[in-house]
Amino acid sequence: MTTGESFTPVADIGEFGLIERVQQRLTAGTSTDLLTGIGDDAAVYRVADGKVHIVTTDALIEGVHFDRTFVPMRHLGFKALAVNVSDIVAMNGTPRFATIALGLPHNISVEMAEAFYDGLDEAATLYGVTIIGGDMTASQRLVISVTVIGEAPEERVVRRSGARPGDLICVSGDLGSSFAGLKVLLDQKKRMEREGDAFKPALDDFPYVIRRHLRPAARLDLVRGWEQAGVRPNALIDISDGLASELHHLCKQSGTGALVHAATIPIDLETRHVADQVGEDVDTFALFGGEDYELLFALSEDDLERLPSDSFTVIGHFTPPDEGIQLKTPEGGTIPLDAQGYAHFGG
Amino acid sequence: MTTGESFTPVADIGEFGLIERVQQRLTAGTSTDLLTGIGDDAAVYRVADGKVHIVTTDALIEGVHFDRTFVPMRHLGFKALAVNVSDIVAMNGTPRFATIALGLPHNISVEMAEAFYDGLDEAATLYGVTIIGGDMTASQRLVISVTVIGEAPEERVVRRSGARPGDLICVSGDLGSSFAGLKVLLDQKKRMEREGDAFKPALDDFPYVIRRHLRPAARLDLVRGWEQAGVRPNALIDISDGLASELHHLCKQSGTGALVHAATIPIDLETRHVADQVGEDVDTFALFGGEDYELLFALSEDDLERLPSDSFTVIGHFTPPDEGIQLKTPEGGTIPLDAQGYAHFGG
Repeated sequence: MTTGESFTPVADIGEFGLIERVQQRLTAGTSTDLLTGIGDDAAVYRVADGKVHIVTTDALIEGVHFDRTFVPMRHLGFKALAVNVSDIVAMNGTPRFATIALGLPHNISVEMAEAFYDGLDEAATLYGVTIIGGDMTASQRLVISVTVIGEAPEERVVRRSGARPGDLICVSGDLGSSFAGLKVLLDQKKRMEREGDAFKPALDDFPYVIRRHLRPAARLDLVRGWEQAGVRPNALIDISDGLASELHHLCKQSGTGALVHAATIPIDLETRHVADQVGEDVDTFALFGGEDYELLFALSEDDLERLPSDSFTVIGHFTPPDEGIQLKTPEGGTIPLDAQGYAHFGG
Repeated sequence: MTTGESFTPVADIGEFGLIERVQQRLTAGTSTDLLTGIGDDAAVYRVADGKVHIVTTDALIEGVHFDRTFVPMRHLGFKALAVNVSDIVAMNGTPRFATIALGLPHNISVEMAEAFYDGLDEAATLYGVTIIGGDMTASQRLVISVTVIGEAPEERVVRRSGARPGDLICVSGDLGSSFAGLKVLLDQKKRMEREGDAFKPALDDFPYVIRRHLRPAARLDLVRGWEQAGVRPNALIDISDGLASELHHLCKQSGTGALVHAATIPIDLETRHVADQVGEDVDTFALFGGEDYELLFALSEDDLERLPSDSFTVIGHFTPPDEGIQLKTPEGGTIPLDAQGYAHFGG
């Protein structure tokens, strides 16, 4: 029962292209309670006077987002919730509730499902989330789809669109470490396949980057710190697809340019060691490596002194839109910073 | 990196057994705003004084829940939203917002994704839902996970647990037709595989049951009718896994028995024709066939006259728990009605 329709591969237009295309098919009227729909880290709708809820959904699919060979189920459960909490955090919200849809293949045991839920529970406890429902079904591969509902006072919500020229570009934590961890794990897997039964995992040299990849943290602590300090960033996004890609989103939606000083990008020493070992440029890890789940935000210069300086790093500033998105290299030159991040589609 | 853990196949304990097991792993504190968690059709939490939100998640996985050979993408989009709306309806709520997570294999084109969204949009328009976000990613098989958020005044919510002995057992629409539609489609598929290029689909003999399977409707009209009539059922569930299975849920959670008169179960003539053609008992379709998405509810006898009689059928009454769940056959005998419904796991 095929049709004579044309067949455009999704890879031809990419994930973002496809999202734009299908969005145009949605003609149903929009609720007046909806404040932010598709196109930010999460959707925002009003539930009472001055109070909004924030909702996000992310799916993790075996063989696409993770490799069960080296991802323990407990870490996977933690990560599945944490990456969704990160999207609530990226709107300056507090997570409240979560639902979990699981597709379980035959080679997942009851004990493995329990370990997954132990990890979920660990993240739920850490981030104050109540798991309120879900769905479980058979599947060919392990499929995890999590929805998190958060809340915020309406005036505290921060979108991608509020950066202004002159605002400081800030990031939390360090960048590129999750990608470095993935590199180490992939290298170990290759060795395991080559060496067979003689293989002994050697993961102790890089504990930090491996943990960053397997069990990333959502930076809810920053949201709490901003509230305590009475500070509200002007624009905010979480770094799931790499700094360069997320900065492009902020600039596009805010209508600004940006200048980033490469030398100021926070990179952990262990990340540098991994880059050295595999003979790659560590700046590539930091700019284009995904899944750090740190926060990228625009801060008014006046707010700088109101925040503890150890909670983030200033890596540049937003500029007028005609100046583009530029990277100042350690050598002093300035080059355009492409968005090219980590993409699951097409490659 | 395997472990020495024991391996209990999920099929050994079944879907409901697994849900019970993993629920015990959730130790994180529960929000005081949560009114109903895991174990009903949807979760309920308070968002403002006297106002609750209702949330549900359901995943549809290719090869488990549907066969792309005979399910048009547009119908699939409609169904993915409708079955989730049905869970909101099953709490006596009104759907408001939805998020969609899609895992797309390489053999899904942009045009097919658009057709899927056209179907989603059709259901969104019909049920008054705004699609506010989602996630799209690559996948080996087509994976669809939908979350719907609905709302209700707190005192209108109906749970599975409120049936009392003496209440009438009521169902909307007719039962077994979706299963009959599936039978027709599976039969056509078998012929297609046998006849190859010579195959011509013959779907015109059974248009109603095929549509019931491919494009089921959520019975939001009943929720609206009850509100207009000032009636609130005592217990409510949607029939996704078959009448017998859902009745067992209602009785277990309400602490009642039930007596169903087989002869009163509403069955469409086309469903009877399909059962005749395949030489099976049509009562089996109605009792154990899944995916009708009609409503099963407990009604106080006093409320019977306040509702239009063409909107539902009385098929029996709830009894004291020690009388068990019984089926009165057309011949006048009474037999225990097993829960054995449609299950994706193991059986």
